[in-house]
Amino acid sequence: MIIQLKPQVTPQQVDRLRDILDQKKFTTKDVNTQKGSYLIAIGKGDFDIRSIGFMEGVADIHVVSDNYKLVSAKWKVDPSEVDLGDGVNIKQGGLALMAGPCSIEGEEQINNTVEHLKEAGIRIMRGGVYKPRSSPYSFRGMGIEGLKLWHEIAQRNGIKIISEVMQVSQIEEMHDYVDIFQVGARNTQNYNLLDELGKVDKPVLIKRGISGTIDELLYSAEYVFSGGNENLLLCERGIRTYEKASRNTFDINAIPILKAKSHLPVISDPSHGIGIRDHVPAIAMASVLAGADGVIYETHQDPRKAFSDGQQTLNFRQSSQLANNLRRVMKMRKEML
Amino acid sequence: MIIQLKPQVTPQQVDRLRDILDQKKFTTKDVNTQKGSYLIAIGKGDFDIRSIGFMEGVADIHVVSDNYKLVSAKWKVDPSEVDLGDGVNIKQGGLALMAGPCSIEGEEQINNTVEHLKEAGIRIMRGGVYKPRSSPYSFRGMGIEGLKLWHEIAQRNGIKIISEVMQVSQIEEMHDYVDIFQVGARNTQNYNLLDELGKVDKPVLIKRGISGTIDELLYSAEYVFSGGNENLLLCERGIRTYEKASRNTFDINAIPILKAKSHLPVISDPSHGIGIRDHVPAIAMASVLAGADGVIYETHQDPRKAFSDGQQTLNFRQSSQLANNLRRVMKMRKEML
Amino acid sequence: MIIQLKPQVTPQQVDRLRDILDQKKFTTKDVNTQKGSYLIAIGKGDFDIRSIGFMEGVADIHVVSDNYKLVSAKWKVDPSEVDLGDGVNIKQGGLALMAGPCSIEGEEQINNTVEHLKEAGIRIMRGGVYKPRSSPYSFRGMGIEGLKLWHEIAQRNGIKIISEVMQVSQIEEMHDYVDIFQVGARNTQNYNLLDELGKVDKPVLIKRGISGTIDELLYSAEYVFSGGNENLLLCERGIRTYEKASRNTFDINAIPILKAKSHLPVISDPSHGIGIRDHVPAIAMASVLAGADGVIYETHQDPRKAFSDGQQTLNFRQSSQLANNLRRVMKMRKEML
Amino acid sequence: MIIQLKPQVTPQQVDRLRDILDQKKFTTKDVNTQKGSYLIAIGKGDFDIRSIGFMEGVADIHVVSDNYKLVSAKWKVDPSEVDLGDGVNIKQGGLALMAGPCSIEGEEQINNTVEHLKEAGIRIMRGGVYKPRSSPYSFRGMGIEGLKLWHEIAQRNGIKIISEVMQVSQIEEMHDYVDIFQVGARNTQNYNLLDELGKVDKPVLIKRGISGTIDELLYSAEYVFSGGNENLLLCERGIRTYEKASRNTFDINAIPILKAKSHLPVISDPSHGIGIRDHVPAIAMASVLAGADGVIYETHQDPRKAFSDGQQTLNFRQSSQLANNLRRVMKMRKEML
Repeated sequence: MIIQLKPQVTPQQVDRLRDILDQKKFTTKDVNTQKGSYLIAIGKGDFDIRSIGFMEGVADIHVVSDNYKLVSAKWKVDPSEVDLGDGVNIKQGGLALMAGPCSIEGEEQINNTVEHLKEAGIRIMRGGVYKPRSSPYSFRGMGIEGLKLWHEIAQRNGIKIISEVMQVSQIEEMHDYVDIFQVGARNTQNYNLLDELGKVDKPVLIKRGISGTIDELLYSAEYVFSGGNENLLLCERGIRTYEKASRNTFDINAIPILKAKSHLPVISDPSHGIGIRDHVPAIAMASVLAGADGVIYETHQDPRKAFSDGQQTLNFRQSSQLANNLRRVMKMRKEML
Repeated sequence: MIIQLKPQVTPQQVDRLRDILDQKKFTTKDVNTQKGSYLIAIGKGDFDIRSIGFMEGVADIHVVSDNYKLVSAKWKVDPSEVDLGDGVNIKQGGLALMAGPCSIEGEEQINNTVEHLKEAGIRIMRGGVYKPRSSPYSFRGMGIEGLKLWHEIAQRNGIKIISEVMQVSQIEEMHDYVDIFQVGARNTQNYNLLDELGKVDKPVLIKRGISGTIDELLYSAEYVFSGGNENLLLCERGIRTYEKASRNTFDINAIPILKAKSHLPVISDPSHGIGIRDHVPAIAMASVLAGADGVIYETHQDPRKAFSDGQQTLNFRQSSQLANNLRRVMKMRKEML
Repeated sequence: MIIQLKPQVTPQQVDRLRDILDQKKFTTKDVNTQKGSYLIAIGKGDFDIRSIGFMEGVADIHVVSDNYKLVSAKWKVDPSEVDLGDGVNIKQGGLALMAGPCSIEGEEQINNTVEHLKEAGIRIMRGGVYKPRSSPYSFRGMGIEGLKLWHEIAQRNGIKIISEVMQVSQIEEMHDYVDIFQVGARNTQNYNLLDELGKVDKPVLIKRGISGTIDELLYSAEYVFSGGNENLLLCERGIRTYEKASRNTFDINAIPILKAKSHLPVISDPSHGIGIRDHVPAIAMASVLAGADGVIYETHQDPRKAFSDGQQTLNFRQSSQLANNLRRVMKMRKEML
Repeated sequence: MIIQLKPQVTPQQVDRLRDILDQKKFTTKDVNTQKGSYLIAIGKGDFDIRSIGFMEGVADIHVVSDNYKLVSAKWKVDPSEVDLGDGVNIKQGGLALMAGPCSIEGEEQINNTVEHLKEAGIRIMRGGVYKPRSSPYSFRGMGIEGLKLWHEIAQRNGIKIISEVMQVSQIEEMHDYVDIFQVGARNTQNYNLLDELGKVDKPVLIKRGISGTIDELLYSAEYVFSGGNENLLLCERGIRTYEKASRNTFDINAIPILKAKSHLPVISDPSHGIGIRDHVPAIAMASVLAGADGVIYETHQDPRKAFSDGQQTLNFRQSSQLANNLRRVMKMRKEML
């Protein structure tokens, strides 16, 4: 049960609500986000919501049968919107494009990529400065200095930044230099990281786990939301299956299912979803037609020379063409509704 | 290695080729289809194809490094086409639509469905008369009498029939009443059935196995092709994974991958691919945008009363709308190439 | 609901039962096996079994909540036993060993294997004469002539035969030359084959499907049992997962789960379960300790020269040692109960 | 390539080695653990190890073709041993038993469990004070105060403690109160956590990821080892598959495969591996027979009342019986080698 509180609710009013819920053996959790205040009540018994519906301080009450609550479409039927400022936002029907290299490699690469994004009309640049690598002997990214350099160039050019945060200590370090924190597939259930990102005033994109279920992705989003941060994006990036002809199995079913279950925007990552350069555009376009609100993909001036993931990275010509085609697909999707 | 033979090749010429290949420790297999004659040679050693390239009776030679040969795009770069007659064909860019109930239930249902298909401009009707059911106590279909009834009605209305064949003995029985034999997901590796379908002069649609790999689907097609039947369709229908929010995980990656690996048309089955009525259209449209040459889906005049698979079956209104939208998607796909 | 009928039940008595069940909207199915007669009733409504419990012809009634009925441990609490004659049987605590090559290759190989089995005290020989192969160009087995040769040698030496049947037409052909029909992993849901094997008076071992669930294996067994053949063995042989360090993932959990759910004997196939020769004994022993009633594994006089599956095949020395160790494990398991 | 250095190696000698390797385009990494010093060299070119084999400071050189190096059995053929002091150690053939509740719940529960372990001759107690929970509204454990209380009681009774660490900041906090740090299945690829655990002077048990491969588990161990901590345990706890009859699919194949690939001890977790109380003992015993060096399982004085995981938790009577049976199994395993 989600009890939406009025902005002017008093601590005494909240205490009274909690007392009533306690008596009914509900456990409660206060949630205060930048957008509002809620009291989440979890319990098994019957409860007549009219008994508290007219109490002072209560704006609205929603019974949500899902185990996740605040991210459920059952209480918030209008899709959420994430606003990055400067006219860049991510919302139902808006087609947010995020492109860039797997790894940030240096100034020249950043400049070239930014130039390409501006020409292609893409406002958000992706790139990793901390890279999760299965082998401890692999390149692990340029780190915070790379991020500062990137931020300086991006900001000058009106480009927003999304980059992966791998641990709690990096949140503060990265905070002033990113516009969206990305939680990677290996960290989708790193609950401490999610808890801390709940306290942050920047949007968070959560990738589905390597073999995570759709529900687990929603639970992970619930962690961040209930921690206080409503600015959330869900990302389908393919799951691990027995099929080895592609890097992962892009679960296109997840797109309409997530859109139906949650009010949060859904982004697709076709680069990791199939892992084969020539087929990335097909998966990207299919995902938008299936309902994705945005696409995050890898592009590099010379994919063969990329430090990582070159086999699934588009060159700039392919990237520009894809961006144009995705806009056409979105236009058609909106006409067909 | 595929050695394409000239129409007028003599047995002596073939024997001479085989002798040469024998000496090089290649094993050979004669393949004679309605469209041509081939000698397939499998071996490991080096072989200079010029040594046989100019021999009499040889039309062309292709070295194919894949383990499947005749279905590979490496020798036949032009996409194949399957012609059902009466102007109905399945080919690259042609958008073959096949719709109908999970199970054929009776005359009224057939009539209603045929009427709907005609209105929606759909030329091929799907339906099962032999149903594979995990429990022996479930309805197993109307059998051959149902098929005859259906055929009579369909033929009168210019509608082609695709229906599942489950065992060798049904091939002859069903032969005169179907336009396409369907091999179901549980029979994809039923090699005896595939062998026998190689001898048939009707097209065959092979569904990917319940947890079949993309390569296994191509191998299964190779069975039918090398048995003598080139009229083949491949079908992606979702695979079994840990994710239970959908009936299967529709592997959209398989569509561009199959199209790149093989010259055969690729059909998508979104009904089994996601198993949730409301989301079937999204998956259907996404699959066409990703490269599918056709779609097979379930529709029924009253899905709630369908004998089987009702939860993933569209009603006729939804079906008509989907057919129209799919045509728009295909039009856009062709414009974007 | 399973209604066990008395041996002397009359058709009239069965009709009366059926009428009562019809009125309650139950569908019924007659099952007559070599061991008994049953009426299976499937329905959703409430039903007071006392209303038919004392009717003439009724021996006993069991309500079975599982979707499979006759193979469930819920009605038949004593484990079933399969008797092959000549003192060879397969039963709870009896440790049935079945060993031999993947493919039957010729007389010398058969003789050598039979000799080895006799020395090792193994009474059942496995081997394929029809081989399911993913590529149509691979060796497909010696066929019926190989089976006849094998049978002649085996019978002379008191060795029983288990061999895979791939299609309905082979059942009659193979019938006189096998002691156990094996249904392979690719045919677990070949329902026509299962139906026909229900009419046969020889035991049937059903392998779990390549990615079959435990319940699907039980349903497949229900097909054969309800077709009239109670002499059934279930076989765990590994499932397909994302893990590629082994050929399959041997699902050891399936052993105690199957034993709890069903009264049928459970056999393990460690050769396909792990696919790595050196580790086959570890998996074999573990499976017996976990509750398997028998083991089927691959052995060959010279595994490197085996026509197929050599990498997972034990040589005779390893096989003898394994057989001895398995007996020790079973002895300890029985002491620990 | 692993270059084992002599204890008295000088910085100058290491620099000289590095120069030679640099010239050959090898990248190098210094590794200093409590047990020794190594120089790890990663490169693709040919390299004649004799050119450095006799240099001063070099103890030995091993070429390891695996991508993981220090955890590979290819250079360290003798199994590693982890010593917890007070006569408690974990090694090949030693059968380390670790039992206890899922969650530490309070003093009475700790006392009862410790009493049980002493009676059953079990020296290591498991329990969680920080619990990873998919829902943010679930009980997340007693935290550090629970751990201190537990440690006080355990130490007094000669019982060692293993407990899960979920984030870097907990390492220092927990350090003085645990004997083994456990890395949970959701954190197997939390590389920052692994890096930090490399600096710790306490053993680390790493669970296989929820759908982690065997190689990924070895890579994760390589992180900790190359970070400086050789005291490592690998743990198989079941993987996520399509099969839902059990909580996870216990991958018994992983046990002999890990033992062959690595010199590190392998522990099995049958409680999470099957998730069904009645079948936990079968899986535990099977895993030891297959080669596990220890077992970690859940036990509770009253499983029905456990805060979490009750359905897979043994009561004390079952736990005592299992401990005895596991010792018998290990005894037999050693006799059979």
